[in-house]
Amino acid sequence: MTKILAITGGVGGAKLALGLSKILNEKEVLFLVNTGDDFQHLGLEISPDVDSLLYALSEKNNPELGWGRKDESWNFISTLEELGTDAWFRLGDRDLALHITRTQAIAQGKSLQEVTDHLSAALGIKHRIAPMSQDRISTIVETPEGKLGFQEYFVREKCEPEVVNFHFEGIKSAKPNPIVASWMENCDGILICPSNPYVSVDPILKVPGYQELFHSKPVIAVSPIVGGLAIKGPAAKMMKELGVPPTPTAVSEHYGDLLSGFILDETDGDQANDISIPSIVTQTVMVTLQDRIDLAKLCVRFLEELA
Amino acid sequence: MTKILAITGGVGGAKLALGLSKILNEKEVLFLVNTGDDFQHLGLEISPDVDSLLYALSEKNNPELGWGRKDESWNFISTLEELGTDAWFRLGDRDLALHITRTQAIAQGKSLQEVTDHLSAALGIKHRIAPMSQDRISTIVETPEGKLGFQEYFVREKCEPEVVNFHFEGIKSAKPNPIVASWMENCDGILICPSNPYVSVDPILKVPGYQELFHSKPVIAVSPIVGGLAIKGPAAKMMKELGVPPTPTAVSEHYGDLLSGFILDETDGDQANDISIPSIVTQTVMVTLQDRIDLAKLCVRFLEELA
Repeated sequence: MTKILAITGGVGGAKLALGLSKILNEKEVLFLVNTGDDFQHLGLEISPDVDSLLYALSEKNNPELGWGRKDESWNFISTLEELGTDAWFRLGDRDLALHITRTQAIAQGKSLQEVTDHLSAALGIKHRIAPMSQDRISTIVETPEGKLGFQEYFVREKCEPEVVNFHFEGIKSAKPNPIVASWMENCDGILICPSNPYVSVDPILKVPGYQELFHSKPVIAVSPIVGGLAIKGPAAKMMKELGVPPTPTAVSEHYGDLLSGFILDETDGDQANDISIPSIVTQTVMVTLQDRIDLAKLCVRFLEELA
Repeated sequence: MTKILAITGGVGGAKLALGLSKILNEKEVLFLVNTGDDFQHLGLEISPDVDSLLYALSEKNNPELGWGRKDESWNFISTLEELGTDAWFRLGDRDLALHITRTQAIAQGKSLQEVTDHLSAALGIKHRIAPMSQDRISTIVETPEGKLGFQEYFVREKCEPEVVNFHFEGIKSAKPNPIVASWMENCDGILICPSNPYVSVDPILKVPGYQELFHSKPVIAVSPIVGGLAIKGPAAKMMKELGVPPTPTAVSEHYGDLLSGFILDETDGDQANDISIPSIVTQTVMVTLQDRIDLAKLCVRFLEELA
């Protein structure tokens, strides 16, 4: 039996997570998810990356939009707009049911893990999703015009402001999710899904305690950068603004010592020689479910080889 | 110029309120509304009678359902049900925008009056709606099996439990809405719309201070009971359970001394002689907009005669 920890952020990571969930059971893979994007908005507790994973694993994600829930309607948000209330964060009518459920449970004293377990069960998900911490950590994007909360940057400002730095408010005093430490005891290795290194993966890696847990195991990452672009999201734009070339090589260097192996897309096959750790060139762009499964199988095999 | 105060509860009263709003401008009529039905549910501040009036006056009410908002969809509540969260209070997707807006504003320290003014403006309503108090008052229905919050009785239990008594939690220490006292200074009279006497009108009349303000003016009421039935809601059922005949006469006696005049439906014309105060027999069942306007005109004329 293989036992891995999959680190994931938003929609890109969630695609590979679905592939993993099809080939590994709930005793073989645990999903560790970024909560730096979490925020309180309209009185609601919103956990975008947890939700992306909930919807992906329950196959309720919206394939047309690439985010949110399928069979969605938008009457709440359009009415909110008519009432003159903040409507920049596009909450779908069905999606709202999840946020209200979470907000209620947290108000009643439940932890984010308990809420996530409850939502997973309600959505028919057998695999466990572990939010990176039960403590509130907020990713702040530093721009020349000042600081922005992550969703303000990502959704309201459509990633337009130039990025200078990132900052994870509350992280120093945050505790890692205790589920992870017990999972790591007999875990074979760690897979960093193709998520944004700066705002999806780094917040997880910087929660005190995880680095020590991870360093003793093989860690592989799938490049979220393909052909100089991010498949989705602002990773490539951020790299350029930070003075880093938007390449798989730069992503592998970003993770540095932590990595034992790296997977990059065939589009970037010429860079394989620049990477100093074992690497695999393959098709990483996941369009179909079979693409997700194929990449998941390759990742698991690679981790087994490195273990 | 006429200047009246219209006392109203739910959907029945809101029909006449719309008629009044078509013949009187915002300096001629103020709507004083029950908030005893208000409750916190799913973390939201819900004011059902204020909302019925907001939707009626903005002509956004749902004519098919007889409650809620028109062009409504129900994806939020059906998803909430799928997630196993309390879904007995049927919140429509559009309606939810109003509750979220109110909840946010109250959380930011706004009063119910400020929120109601804001929502009225957003919905294009010129007339002012005055919630009976800014303080929290909760109508409790006493039944042989115990106490129920009003919405639990009305929506969750579908008015099935037998009614023994009513109780308005918080009313003794509640303050009347100060807008009403200044409105009363040069007000010609008060119209009690065809709302439930026990759970829509009584909570208003029992807020300390209003009785004194109202006793010096002519007060008329339109019977919510027609032919032994309530047009909508549990008024007739409640009267029977309380040992009171479900008749217009009993309604007029319920208000007692406060009343200077009474309007009953032509169906009950034979009871006009039993009523000891001036009374008018007319068509009170409002189906069309013209019905609402006609009854409103009659009420205003009647108040003018009594003034």
